[in-house]
Parts: sequence; C-alpha cells; structure tokens
Amino acid sequence: MNKDKLKEMLIKVQNKEIKIEEAVMKMQQLPYDDLRFAKIDTHRELRKGFPEVVLCQGKSIEQIREILKRHIQHSKTVMVTRADQNVFDAIQSEFSEIKYFEQAHIILLGKKMQTKSEKYILVITAGSSDIPVAEEAAITAEIMGNKVERLFDCGVAGVHRLLYNTEKIYNANVIIVVAGMDGALPSLVGGLVNKPVIAVPTSIGYGASFGGVAALLTMLNSCAPGISVVNIDNGFGADYQAHTIQNLNGE
Amino acid sequence: MNKDKLKEMLIKVQNKEIKIEEAVMKMQQLPYDDLRFAKIDTHRELRKGFPEVVLCQGKSIEQIREILKRHIQHSKTVMVTRADQNVFDAIQSEFSEIKYFEQAHIILLGKKMQTKSEKYILVITAGSSDIPVAEEAAITAEIMGNKVERLFDCGVAGVHRLLYNTEKIYNANVIIVVAGMDGALPSLVGGLVNKPVIAVPTSIGYGASFGGVAALLTMLNSCAPGISVVNIDNGFGADYQAHTIQNLNGE
Amino acid sequence: MNKDKLKEMLIKVQNKEIKIEEAVMKMQQLPYDDLRFAKIDTHRELRKGFPEVVLCQGKSIEQIREILKRHIQHSKTVMVTRADQNVFDAIQSEFSEIKYFEQAHIILLGKKMQTKSEKYILVITAGSSDIPVAEEAAITAEIMGNKVERLFDCGVAGVHRLLYNTEKIYNANVIIVVAGMDGALPSLVGGLVNKPVIAVPTSIGYGASFGGVAALLTMLNSCAPGISVVNIDNGFGADYQAHTIQNLNGE
Amino acid sequence: MNKDKLKEMLIKVQNKEIKIEEAVMKMQQLPYDDLRFAKIDTHRELRKGFPEVVLCQGKSIEQIREILKRHIQHSKTVMVTRADQNVFDAIQSEFSEIKYFEQAHIILLGKKMQTKSEKYILVITAGSSDIPVAEEAAITAEIMGNKVERLFDCGVAGVHRLLYNTEKIYNANVIIVVAGMDGALPSLVGGLVNKPVIAVPTSIGYGASFGGVAALLTMLNSCAPGISVVNIDNGFGADYQAHTIQNLNGE
Amino acid sequence: MNKDKLKEMLIKVQNKEIKIEEAVMKMQQLPYDDLRFAKIDTHRELRKGFPEVVLCQGKSIEQIREILKRHIQHSKTVMVTRADQNVFDAIQSEFSEIKYFEQAHIILLGKKMQTKSEKYILVITAGSSDIPVAEEAAITAEIMGNKVERLFDCGVAGVHRLLYNTEKIYNANVIIVVAGMDGALPSLVGGLVNKPVIAVPTSIGYGASFGGVAALLTMLNSCAPGISVVNIDNGFGADYQAHTIQNLNGE
Amino acid sequence: MNKDKLKEMLIKVQNKEIKIEEAVMKMQQLPYDDLRFAKIDTHRELRKGFPEVVLCQGKSIEQIREILKRHIQHSKTVMVTRADQNVFDAIQSEFSEIKYFEQAHIILLGKKMQTKSEKYILVITAGSSDIPVAEEAAITAEIMGNKVERLFDCGVAGVHRLLYNTEKIYNANVIIVVAGMDGALPSLVGGLVNKPVIAVPTSIGYGASFGGVAALLTMLNSCAPGISVVNIDNGFGADYQAHTIQNLNGE
Amino acid sequence: MNKDKLKEMLIKVQNKEIKIEEAVMKMQQLPYDDLRFAKIDTHRELRKGFPEVVLCQGKSIEQIREILKRHIQHSKTVMVTRADQNVFDAIQSEFSEIKYFEQAHIILLGKKMQTKSEKYILVITAGSSDIPVAEEAAITAEIMGNKVERLFDCGVAGVHRLLYNTEKIYNANVIIVVAGMDGALPSLVGGLVNKPVIAVPTSIGYGASFGGVAALLTMLNSCAPGISVVNIDNGFGADYQAHTIQNLNGE
Amino acid sequence: MNKDKLKEMLIKVQNKEIKIEEAVMKMQQLPYDDLRFAKIDTHRELRKGFPEVVLCQGKSIEQIREILKRHIQHSKTVMVTRADQNVFDAIQSEFSEIKYFEQAHIILLGKKMQTKSEKYILVITAGSSDIPVAEEAAITAEIMGNKVERLFDCGVAGVHRLLYNTEKIYNANVIIVVAGMDGALPSLVGGLVNKPVIAVPTSIGYGASFGGVAALLTMLNSCAPGISVVNIDNGFGADYQAHTIQNLNGE
Repeated sequence: MNKDKLKEMLIKVQNKEIKIEEAVMKMQQLPYDDLRFAKIDTHRELRKGFPEVVLCQGKSIEQIREILKRHIQHSKTVMVTRADQNVFDAIQSEFSEIKYFEQAHIILLGKKMQTKSEKYILVITAGSSDIPVAEEAAITAEIMGNKVERLFDCGVAGVHRLLYNTEKIYNANVIIVVAGMDGALPSLVGGLVNKPVIAVPTSIGYGASFGGVAALLTMLNSCAPGISVVNIDNGFGADYQAHTIQNLNGE
Repeated sequence: MNKDKLKEMLIKVQNKEIKIEEAVMKMQQLPYDDLRFAKIDTHRELRKGFPEVVLCQGKSIEQIREILKRHIQHSKTVMVTRADQNVFDAIQSEFSEIKYFEQAHIILLGKKMQTKSEKYILVITAGSSDIPVAEEAAITAEIMGNKVERLFDCGVAGVHRLLYNTEKIYNANVIIVVAGMDGALPSLVGGLVNKPVIAVPTSIGYGASFGGVAALLTMLNSCAPGISVVNIDNGFGADYQAHTIQNLNGE
Repeated sequence: MNKDKLKEMLIKVQNKEIKIEEAVMKMQQLPYDDLRFAKIDTHRELRKGFPEVVLCQGKSIEQIREILKRHIQHSKTVMVTRADQNVFDAIQSEFSEIKYFEQAHIILLGKKMQTKSEKYILVITAGSSDIPVAEEAAITAEIMGNKVERLFDCGVAGVHRLLYNTEKIYNANVIIVVAGMDGALPSLVGGLVNKPVIAVPTSIGYGASFGGVAALLTMLNSCAPGISVVNIDNGFGADYQAHTIQNLNGE
Repeated sequence: MNKDKLKEMLIKVQNKEIKIEEAVMKMQQLPYDDLRFAKIDTHRELRKGFPEVVLCQGKSIEQIREILKRHIQHSKTVMVTRADQNVFDAIQSEFSEIKYFEQAHIILLGKKMQTKSEKYILVITAGSSDIPVAEEAAITAEIMGNKVERLFDCGVAGVHRLLYNTEKIYNANVIIVVAGMDGALPSLVGGLVNKPVIAVPTSIGYGASFGGVAALLTMLNSCAPGISVVNIDNGFGADYQAHTIQNLNGE
Repeated sequence: MNKDKLKEMLIKVQNKEIKIEEAVMKMQQLPYDDLRFAKIDTHRELRKGFPEVVLCQGKSIEQIREILKRHIQHSKTVMVTRADQNVFDAIQSEFSEIKYFEQAHIILLGKKMQTKSEKYILVITAGSSDIPVAEEAAITAEIMGNKVERLFDCGVAGVHRLLYNTEKIYNANVIIVVAGMDGALPSLVGGLVNKPVIAVPTSIGYGASFGGVAALLTMLNSCAPGISVVNIDNGFGADYQAHTIQNLNGE
Repeated sequence: MNKDKLKEMLIKVQNKEIKIEEAVMKMQQLPYDDLRFAKIDTHRELRKGFPEVVLCQGKSIEQIREILKRHIQHSKTVMVTRADQNVFDAIQSEFSEIKYFEQAHIILLGKKMQTKSEKYILVITAGSSDIPVAEEAAITAEIMGNKVERLFDCGVAGVHRLLYNTEKIYNANVIIVVAGMDGALPSLVGGLVNKPVIAVPTSIGYGASFGGVAALLTMLNSCAPGISVVNIDNGFGADYQAHTIQNLNGE
Repeated sequence: MNKDKLKEMLIKVQNKEIKIEEAVMKMQQLPYDDLRFAKIDTHRELRKGFPEVVLCQGKSIEQIREILKRHIQHSKTVMVTRADQNVFDAIQSEFSEIKYFEQAHIILLGKKMQTKSEKYILVITAGSSDIPVAEEAAITAEIMGNKVERLFDCGVAGVHRLLYNTEKIYNANVIIVVAGMDGALPSLVGGLVNKPVIAVPTSIGYGASFGGVAALLTMLNSCAPGISVVNIDNGFGADYQAHTIQNLNGE
Repeated sequence: MNKDKLKEMLIKVQNKEIKIEEAVMKMQQLPYDDLRFAKIDTHRELRKGFPEVVLCQGKSIEQIREILKRHIQHSKTVMVTRADQNVFDAIQSEFSEIKYFEQAHIILLGKKMQTKSEKYILVITAGSSDIPVAEEAAITAEIMGNKVERLFDCGVAGVHRLLYNTEKIYNANVIIVVAGMDGALPSLVGGLVNKPVIAVPTSIGYGASFGGVAALLTMLNSCAPGISVVNIDNGFGADYQAHTIQNLNGE
C-alpha cells in the first residue's frame, strides 16, 4: 500500500464511496496467503522482482506439495531449491509442467522467465567437485531470465587454465566464482576484472577445510577489492544478487 | 598485452621493424614500478577502473610517504585507507593537494573523480557507533565519483525508523548496510528491495559479538536473498563492489 | 524441610514424642526414589511447580520405560521430551493414558494440567522449518496448563507478515520467538513489545549457520533490550521459563 | 498509530475536519527526532515502557552530550550505560540533575522511576569480581522502579553460602544470577526455585574461560529448566527482561 | 636398563663373561614385540604398573585379534577399550577366558587384578545418560584391582540428591565426576571435599554443548580448587589417573 | 554439622540444656564472615584442609586489603595469587609478616604450613618461559607444606635433557608438567612413569598457539594414560590437586 | 612456452616460415584438454614433474572414469587418491593395467615411475590407527619413484620404541611423521635429526581432538625447528613435498 | 653416543683402560650446560647442524644476557629471534661482535656461517606488510649460510607482478612464500614450480582474518600439491626447514 493508494482510499472515504470499517479492514488486509504452517508471500514478486522461492530443507514432502500447489496459482514460474531426487519423484505427477535439474537440485514448475539482455553472468569453478553449487547458481540465473556462461575447473593450481579464458572473463557483466578447499580463485579473478565478483565458498575439502570455513575466510579476506561473499554452498544466493545487478542494467 | 597488440608486434617482427631481442624484452617488460619493498601497480587503473588504493595498516610512515610520492606521479586521485590522524600529520606538508576525512580514516591526494550518474549508493547503519565504517564506505564512494545518500541509526530494535524512509531506500541503485551487534538490519532491508544489498558487519558490540563475528554470521545466513557480505569493518570493500555495480549502469 | 518444620520437629524431640534416632533419620531421609541408574526427584513438583520431565536422549528404551513407571506412581502428568516415534511405539501399550505429539516429539502420560489463566504465551517462528522446535515449546506450554497462540513463518525477509499481526503480538503475556538461519526475528519482535521475549535459536540452516550457532549469536547480541536466549533447539526450556513467568501472574 | 486512532482519523477525514494531505502526512510523520548521526526514538517509552537507553560504547563524548540534551527534553529519566568516569566528568556540569554509579558504570539524568511493587528482583553473584556486572543489573532495576535485593559471592565452590540464604531466594520474584569462570551457579539456583532465572555470564576468568564463553556455554546447557541467558557482561539486558516480567505482575 | 644393570653388564664385559658384540646387542635389544603394524610394548607393565591397554577405535578386527593374541602371551590381564559388541562377537571364541562389559564397552581377557586396598574410588554422574562413560571408568578401576563405589544421576539441578550422600563422598579416596550438558557437578563436589577430584566431560547434550566442549570448559574453569580434567568421554583416562593415585597409598 | 553433632544437639534439646530457638539458630548459623562484597569462607580450612585462597584478578586493592585483614584473623597462613608487584607495594606496610614471591606472583601472609612428608612434588617445565607458571605451582606447594623439586627447560625438542634426569622423575610422588607451544612434554613424561601427572598448559607461544589452546588440546589428547589437565596458566590449581594427593599419603 | 621457445617462434615469423595468424593461435593454444566438467592439465607433468593426480572425493564414478580415460592417453602413470573399493570395482575392467592399494585408498593405472636414488623417505606413525594416512604417503612416494622405509606405532607414550630405531631415522633423507591424538611425535623426531620433517596430523582421536585439529595445532606449534605441516589426513600432500625434496638431490 | 663410540668404550672397559665407574659416568654425562632456569643444549650443533637459537619472547633481559654469555663460549654463531630494539640496546655493549637486523627482529652474535652453495632460497611476499616476517626468514637463512633472493609485494590481486618474475622463481632451490589476509599466494606459486614451497601465514589483516588464521587455513587447504605450512608469523621456522633442505643438496 503506497502513498498514492493511500490517498486514493482516503478520497473514497471522504466521498463516502466506501465505509470506514471497510477502509480500516482493507488497510489491515493480509497481503499473504495463510497455510497455517507457511505464509505464502504473494506480494514477493512485486517487491523483489521474482516470486518467493521454496527451500526444501527442513520441510516434509507433504508441506512442499501443499506450498507448491498454492504458489503455482499465483505465478507462472515457481522455483524449488535443495530438492533431492525423491522430492521430485514424489510430486512430479501432480504438476503439468515440471522439470528437475539434477546437478543443481532445482525443480522448476512452469516456464523460465524471458531473457531480457545479452549481457551474461559468468559462473567459474575452481574444481570439478564445485560444479553442483555452480549449477545451482547457473540454473537459478537461467530460470530468472539471464544469459549464463560457464567456465569450470580453473583453479589457482593451474593458473594458465584461467588465463587462457580471459576474453570470456572480461566480457562478462557479473562474475560468480565458486571454490572450495583454499578458496583462492576469487582473489585471482577479482584482480583481473573491473566487474562485480560474487564469491561462493563450497564445502568441498577435508580436514582443516572445516566444511567450507577455510574457503569462506579466504574470500572474506581477499586482497583484491570488489569481491563480496555469500554463505557456504549458497549458489542460489550468489545468483540472486547477480540477477539483481543484471536487472539494474536493464532498467 | 592483448590479441591485437600481439598481432601488431608480430607484424613489426616480420617487417623487421623491431629486433627479435627487443620483441622478447617488450613482451616481458614489467608493467609495474618497483620500489623494492612495494611494487606500484601502475596498470591497475586500466585493469580495475581505479588506481591502486594504499592501505596504511602494517606500513611504516616512511613507507607510506615513499609509496604515495610514486603514486601521485601516475594518478590524479590517490586514496589512502585506515590512516590515523598521525599519519596525516606526518605527511600533510609534502603534498600540495591533500585532505583528511577524520571519521572515515581516509586521506585523499588530488581530486575526487567526476560524478557520472545521478543514481546513488545508499549507506545505512544500524547504530550510531557503526558510522565510522559507514563513512569509510561513503567517502570511498564519493572519491570514486558516485553520488551517495546516508541513513544512519535505523536498527531493527526501532523498525519504524527504517520504515519511514522507504522512499529513500526504494530509489537507491545499490545499498550498503552497515551493522554490528546482532547484524540483523541487512535481512530486513533485503526483504524490502529489489536492489543489490551489500552487508558490512562491524566490530561494534561486546561479549559474544566476538569482534563482529556474530554480525558476520547473521549476514551470511540472511534469509532474505540478494545479500552478499564483505569482511568485518570493511567499508572500503563494500563500496568498491558498489562502485563496480554503478559502473555497469554507466556503460 | 523449612524453618517451621524444623521447629515443630524439635518440639516433638523435646516432648519426647519422637525418638532422637527417628528424628535424625527423618532429617536425613532421601527425598527421591532410587532406581540405581536414575534418582527419581519426587520432590521436584513441590520445589519447581511441575514434576521432573524425562529427556529421552541418551537413554535406552528399557531405562525410559522403568523411569516412566516409577514417575506415573507419583504424578498425574508425566511428560517425555525428544521422544522418537519408535520410543512411543515401544512403550505405548504399557500405559493406559498416553499420547504422542509427533511434531513436538513429546509423549504425555496422564492428563494436561488445568489452565489457570486466559493470558496466553505466543509462539512465533521465522520459517516453517522451525515449527518442530516451536511445537516442542507450545505443547510443553499446553501440557503445563497455559493458553498458547501460534504465529508461524513470519521471518524478517517478509516483514509485513509480522507487522500485520501486531495485535496478536501486543496482547500476548510472554513471547517465544523461534528462528534459525540469521536468527534476526527476536530483535524485531523485541523492538515492538513491552513483554518478555524468549528467543530460541534453531539448527535450521546450512554452511556458516554452524548448526544454529549463527542464530544463537545473533540473539545474544540483539540490540533490542528485554530478550533472553536458551540453547539451540531448546523449545522445552523456552517454555519452561515462559511458564514460570505465567505462574508469577497467577499468584 | 493503533486501530482506534486510525478509525478516529478516518472519521475526521469523512467529516472533512482535516484535509487529506494533512492525514497522509500525519500517518507518515516521523515518530523520532533526527540528529543526523542518531535518531532519538521518542516513542520508545510508549512502546517499551521505558525511554531509550544510551549506550556509551563506540560514541564520542561530543555525540553522547548532544544525544543526552535531546533525550532530557522528552523524558524525566535518562539512563546511560557503559559510561567511564571520564564521560561523567566531561558532561556532569551541563545537566542539573545527574548522578554517577561508579561500580555499575551508569549515569542517571533526572529521577529514578517510582517503585510500584514490593516484589523484589534478586541479584546473585558467584564471586566478588562479578559485582560490577551485577551492579549494572541492580542499578538499572532500581532506576526502572523495581525493588532489588543483592546476594554477592555465593559461588558453587562454597555451596553452603548459597544454601544459608534460601529464604531470600525463595521470596524473590525474578532472579538474576551473575557468574564468570565455570558459570555453574545458575544451574544450582535454577534447581532450587520456581521463579524465572536470568543468567548473566561474565568475562571474569583466564585461559580457557575465553572472555566469558565458558560461562556462557555452561548456562546455555544448564540442566535445570527455567533458565535463560543474556550476552556476556550484559547486566543491563538481564535486568531489562526482569523488569518486563515485574511489569506483568503489576498490570 | 638402569644404572645397576649397566654396572653389572660392564663388570661382565671386564671379566670377559660376555662378548662385546653381545653386550652391544643386549644394550640395543628391542624391548617390544614387533607386529609390523603395531609394536607391543611388553615393558609397559614394569614401567607403568599395568600392561598396555588396547584401544579398538581405528583398528580392524583382524588387527585387534592379532594384537590380543600377542598380548595374552605376556600378561594375565588384557584390557580392551571402546569395543563394540561386534568386536566381542568376532573374537570371543578364540580366547578361553574373556568377558564383555556392555555399558562400558570393555573386553577383559584373563582375570581382574587383585584388590590391594579397602580405600575406594567413587564414580559420580550428573545424569543417567552419563553412565556409559562412568562405567568405562568404574570397570577399568575394578579390572586394575581397585574398590569402586558408584553414585549416579546426582546433577546440580537437584542438589539434594548429592547432599544426602555426603558420607559416601567424604569417605572416598579419589573421586571421578562424570557430567555432560553444563558440566557443573565437579565444581560442587570439589567445593565439598578434601580429596582429588578428576572431572570427565561427556558428549551428552545438544546444540551449544558442542559434543562436550561446554562441559569441558566448565570443568577447566571450575572455581573449586583441586579439580583436574581429562578428555571428553575419557572414562578410561580418568580412572587411570585415579588408579595411579590409589597406588601411591599402597606403597 | 555432621551426624554426631546433630545427635548431640538433639540430646541437649531433649534434656532442655539448650532452648529450641537457640537450636534452630545454631543450625542455621552462618559458617562464613560477611563483608557485603565478599563472603569469607571461614570453614574452608576444615572442609578443604587449607584456608580460602585470595585471587587478585578482578578485585580492587581496596577490596583485597579488606579481605586479607579479615582472613588473617582466622588463619596463620593466608595466600594471595595473581598479585602484581603494585598490589604488594600497596598493602605490604599493613601486615607484620608478609612476603612476595615475584616470579610466582604470590603474596604470603603469615607462615608456610609445616612439611609433613619427605615425598616430593616434581615441577617440570618445557621451556624457560614457562617458569612463572611453574613457580606459581611450586610456591603454592611449598606454602601448603610440601617438599618440591624443580626441573626446568626440558622440552621435547631436546629429549636427552629429560632422559638424563629420569632418577629425579622416578622418585617423585606427584609430577606437575608445565608446557606452552606444542604442549608435548606431559605425553613423554606420562609414558615414563607410574605416578599421577598433572599437566598445565601455558599461554607461551604465538600464532596458532591461540594463547595456550594448542597446548591445552595436546594435553587433553595425550596418548599416555594417567594424565589430567588444568586450565591454561593455572599453576595454582595444578598444585592444589597435587597437594590433595600428597595429603592422601600422609593419612 | 618459455623464453627460448618464444625466440624460436619469432625467428620463424621473421623468416615467414609460419603465418602470423598461426603464430597468434599457437601462442594462445590451450595447454589443457577440455572435458567441459574438467580441464585435463596435460602440461602438469612438464611443469610439476609428475602428471596431475585425480582426487576422487566429490566426483561421480562416471566423471572419474571419463577423466581417467583421457589421462591414460597422455601419461604412463596415472594416480587416483581417496578411492573407495567401490570406485575400483566399478572401473577395474576398463583399464588393462590397474592396481588398488587398499589401505592407502589409491588406484594406480599403468606403471610406477622408476626409482632414481637410493636415498629413502622414512614414514613414521605414532599409532597403528594412523597407518592408512601413512600408507597414502608411502604408496604415493613409491609410485613417484622413491625408496620408502616405514616405522609404525612409535608414539611418544612409549618413547623407547622410537629411540631404538634411531639409525633408521638418522639415515633417512626426508621424514614424514604421521600422528593423531596429541600429535606430539613430530616434535620429538624433529629434535633428533638434521633432515626435513613433514608432519601430518590425522583425524584419529575423539572428544577434544576435534577431528585432528588438536594434532594439527600441536604440530604448528612444535618447539623443534625444521618441521612443516600439511592438512589433516593429507598423506598424499606430505609425500608430494617429500618427493619434490628428493628430486632436488637427484638434479 | 653412537654404536661405534659404545663399542670403543666397551673395549676400553675390557682392556681396563678406564674404570667401570668412569664408564658409567661418561655414559650418563650431561650433554648440556645447566643454568638452573635454562639448559644450554651444547650438543645441538652436532645433532641439528646449527647451534640452539635463543627465542626472546617470555624471557627477561637478565635471562637473555646470561644465556647468550654461555652460548657464545660454545659457538661462533649465536642467533637471537623476536628481539625488540630495547633488548639489543640493553645487551649490545657486552658483546664484541654483535649486530641487529631491525626488520627481522634478529640479533647476531659472532659471524654468519659460510655460504656453501650457489643454490638460493627465494623468499616471496604477497604484500609489503608481510616483509618483517619474510625478513625473519631471509636473515635466518643468510646467517645459516644460504644464498637468498627476495621478491616482495607480488600478491594474487595483481598476478602479473608474479608472472613477470617466473625466471627467478623457476631457478630457486626452495621457495618460502609469506602471505597474510587471504593467504592465496602459495597456491599460485605451488602451481607453477617443481620445487618445495614452504608457506608462512602472517597475522596481517583485520576482521575475519583472525590474526592469521584465515591465511593459515587457506594454505593448509591449498589445492596445489607440494606445499607445507608453518605457524603464523614463523619466518624463522620456515627458513629452518628450507635450510635443512639446502643442506641435503650439499651432502
């Protein structure tokens, strides 16, 4: 309810076109759909430019199914993250247009959003074990209507693999760098380009990698400026910011 | 040395316009200025769009002075971060155009860069103790030629202070949210807008704030998508990314 | 054994109404029932206003069964927490009045305590994945004889979901706020009301949530005053304090 | 602005007693006083039952003075926490009614609030080194209009010191237990009483006390139910919740 | 090889009772039995008063069997710790005198050592979930020939359960206190007695107990003097020191 | 008040040799001296075999002086730990028999306790920087009436320094091993002897020693059995347990 | 492409023996084989003296198979680490010359490299549970063409087991010391020899060993100089450095 | 005392060339010089190839002076690390041949050892703030008789600075890489060369660098093989291993 809507309503009150009780009620009306165990944020698309995304973790298949049924009534594009194969198998038959991206653990109900711009988001990984997180970012980006390029397995230990792809890097609009273990790659990329770099630490590694903490700390302490960081394994979040940045260009 | 430059050089070699030895040397020539204890990265401006920034921490006043003298020969704008008052006092007399931003702990040699766009970066703080970090971000942004708006002391504990400024928030191009203690503000801001939000945890707090770790973790775990995080107290880094995003728009 | 009881006993000694040996024995008599592997604290109800609660974690089904049989002889209400379905299945047939609260993982033997007051405890969650912990709190509260209201899935990322329920919040007597991930919700609630807020971090999240540590730290560092915190996932403990506060009113 | 106020306003709009523009403005009017570097939350007293408290940490003496001058115009009672002696010395002369509580590091401008109830908050410490934190809680409580009893230096290592004061403990309405080092005291107190116990870990200790973390963890893991915890050294926060509980009784 | 043995050998050399080569060989002879993957420390019994104990963790059943066969040739008492039921099942048939202590996860080959003294080691637990660790200590003590008394489920939350057993506590020679969660019990016991108290943190708990770290820190920071601590869940190690202390008395 | 005392008292009550009120009072009489900010535990000597020890940390000189004056009225031996030179200078003139042990940071009022046994406590350090903590242990031991031997600077890096002193080690009754950095020495000593070994980690080291945490963890994980550990830099606590063990022998 | 190759190419350009386009292409040609999900670093053998090693962790069997097929085309020796039995079973039939080292979890395709030197790498373990990590180091070393000696189960708790093998230790060229729990062994070895000692912490232990962190910290803080450390359980990495050192000798 | 020395001695015993008592004594003779607070390890030079190095940290100037006087009697080269200017000023006048290396915080008594080989140790730093740690390594190396090359301020953020010095890197025998903040440089160097790389994390950085922990973890998790790590800021230790490797070559 913005300023203009408020004014309009008050004029109607003044003109006695609506009753006071009705006005009070409207001004307090719930802008979400209540499922008792979940509140469907139906205004999210207006507020954030993309409908609320459903995170599977910690929800029963029953809950996921019920939430999705409600969501698909409001949006043409419903995205589900951290979905195991068995979630997909359990709900697949109940939705007409549904697709599972296996590596990314993402379910798409309905259609991808339309691509608006030729500027691409580049997703780079240090190792091949980092690919599932990178795919979570890339598929999210594509569903949200962005062009995506991928550059996988370019870690610092063999730096020429990165340096021979500099053109692809320089031409990107936003760069997502996904790395586990030492997490050193974003520093290198950040030193090369003049574009926003979003670093995603992954839980790949063992021993003193502490489930991605080592990579996370490396990235937070990067000596190359212009890098920001998201949570460990949060490919979705990295793209969400990349998408927000892409949108600025299109405006 | 890009593809075209390389081609051009090889043609000269073929035409015997330059000697082979000279060509080899040119291709290996140092693109930096060597001070023995520091290598001035004179190509940084071309590569990153802004000259290398000098971090005072861990450097002697002698070293800072020497580095700055070299820098000012290459750039019209030289920026120094984490500079205490006594650094400024010690070097002030040796530079003709020098200014100290006390709260931000920044020294500027030469001129701010020109403002290219009317789109502003908004810097929000949760408390008034977070202002020095916020000013590091804001002054950096202004020196780099960005328009900046400030919204200070709007923490979650008095949420109406934020909600009464939604217009300022909605109109920003990029938002930097600076918060210590519980670090909860970026989640709230991130839930409201469709713009990139860069969160800066500060070391403000005591006890289990662990010098900013509590705020850092809050921000990394934000349930509002579109938020990325920089190191504790790293106002400079937050703006650097914000500036990179601003630049995309201007292209 | 308080001062008055002591006096009374000494008078009996003086009057030779009881023998000295008997007096010594009485003064040392065990106020608990000894099962060798567990000491049933039969005075707990007098001392704490509610009989000892049985925590399943770390106990064999054999031990749980034996402890419960002894408990039910002393109390009309016996509550068992952190009970898996298989614990319930294994013991169900041996008790005449028994009920399992699946989401809350609580078993109730006998009857709920009587509700004394119309003032309610409000249990709020940030996400729908936090509900099991919230239900542990809510069911505990109901068994202990409190009125409970629930408000689930109201996280900071969609703040209007909370703000449209302010009436429910303002009318509560005590508020329990359950949140994982960034744990930011208690700060927001704490800033709105003038009632005790008990924050429960949950282990919901991934990566740098460190099994609830991020949410725990956020809550301990809350910039809204009047908030206290219990252990991660400790819905039971949160209610226990809420119940103690409710009891103060009733006195 | 609650439901009734809203209704009243809409009636005035209908009756054209106020103009629409004026109504819009009123509904958006800032409920805080803006000092640019701090937003004085002048509605806090209405919302939270006590005016906003000023935390000195991280603020310059200049800022503290300016904030206090504004505050004292709105409230009869202004409280300043974490104030060193030199803050008090610097501002003392500018306020007519000002007092410094040395151990508690609290400055009081104006008068304590009136005591409403005979029920007291009991503040217990484990050691004598924990007294400054306990005094922060106790003085806060007294300024907020509560009766306070103190019981200092009653740690677990000499348990009889506590057990000989059980009467004082049983008669309290709310109990604040302040302990550093092993932080074991709240568990003991929590096992004895049927009242809300708020535990405050202190940074007293050395080595593996990690600045209060050991005590904090002990308290969070207390096996006595009914205990909640606040941040390390946060005597103020402990009382704030205690005060909120006291207020419930008085209603 | 001590001073006297050395002297004796040198005399034999002087008297040509043994050859020089033989003397060199003897002085370098391996005082252990070499299994390639394990070196059986056959001198351990002389040096430490008890034969080397076999820790199952990280060893294959094949290795355990082979090690035990070698051990039983050298000692009348062979003790195996951290042995699961399946280890016992796999090796049981191959040894004539073998016994499994289920709660303690200990296998005994051969006979317990003879009890030398009436002075007993007292093993106390805070909860009934701590019993397995306590039994590891108690059974170890009994196998090593000590008298043991047990006092289980006496946590701080119901302090009278401990206080009604003070006689048993005062008469002990060494006290082992086993506690998880808040780990507060050793402080209380340590404050009561004038005997060595060895504290064993257990991994019992959840959330911020961090697998026993909370209890470990509590114990290291105990404000009662005379307490020392062993590793989390290390019942064996606690008894080993208790046994060493018992032995001093018997000398 | 033990069982016999209780019986005796009840007989007096029966015989009307004392009044009931007097009996009640006696049974409730405070066994400590109350200074308001500290409760002097005057029964500590009876209960623990040594009068309460005063820890300077966190106390003002005013408080220390007042506590000591009260203590010296009850005991012939008063010991003060963690006392800086300036504490000693401030109070020295007010006590007739006072001595400062500089390295150990201990003040002794009155006389050392009498030595009862020829069996000695051996205090070993790994490096010479660990000596202050070792001296805290050694001086505490001597004041408590124990014979002490010292063996300093015998770290694992030059293992022969230890091995050439095995006689001194074998003849000790209890061994305190003080080590910082890698904290490896107690494992080595523990592998050699059949006596209780109490390990004291020190905060000596830098970088990843984390103020003694590395040494603490090494000691807790020692693969030599019979070792227990006290807090970082807690020489006092190590001796306190050693002293308790010595006392067992003397009984 | 080194200096000489560059010169040679430029001469060809000058002599028009190759076209400029061809020269540009060659200078930019990818020195790796691109599998889309992995970039085979075919120049690794030239650059690092050993072909790229395949780490199984985080890769599907499909990916491993495809990567290995490509690798075996370029190298005579292909090494796979962290391979479970089921990986070996799945791929065994597809390669003609393949061998599985069970304890080391290593698969070898093709032949071991030839042994160049008689100088041996010595691999020592503290316990027998550390052997799998030690074997990872030893087998890697042997595959890379080094002579290896093993010395297992020589921990600090029975120091004579080590001291009776000093000859083997003194004659080694490089020493790898593998230890879990207290991780004290490398300090002892480092104090004895004048050779590089590479320490490998293992995750063997429980409780406060924190999955190898305790051993890691011990090693980093070793008071014996000349020791460096690799990641927890990283036997492969330890040997890789040892091999690099061996190679220096052979040059 | 090795095997040959032992044989020789036994022959003398047999021949009665020395008395048995003398032989026993010789075999037990102390191979160190005892200063009571420090044991001078006079055999260290024989055992480790370099005399014991004196670490100033935690020692008084009195102790340092006394230790050095004793050392200089045994060695021509005495090295003192972590020495502040004031240590040097206090002892300078008492030694004839003494020199202070200011950046490295090293004092040299006597002469550097003779350089044996032309192969050099290369010391690289990421930033100019890392130089003091690098100088500790470099000066140590030079005193120990090694040739040293330096390459400072070559961090990953400006990767060309490193790549333009590849010749210097390829020709080194051992490489020490010193880096704070993100600690990413060793991974990059390790990916380029076939030489042992020793990584030194520094405490340079702020916020989530946690005093060098971030850099330490990055290095331990390096995805480039052949890298080992020493403690934070331990330039001395890094060189010590480099020197040991250099020595292997010279044999």
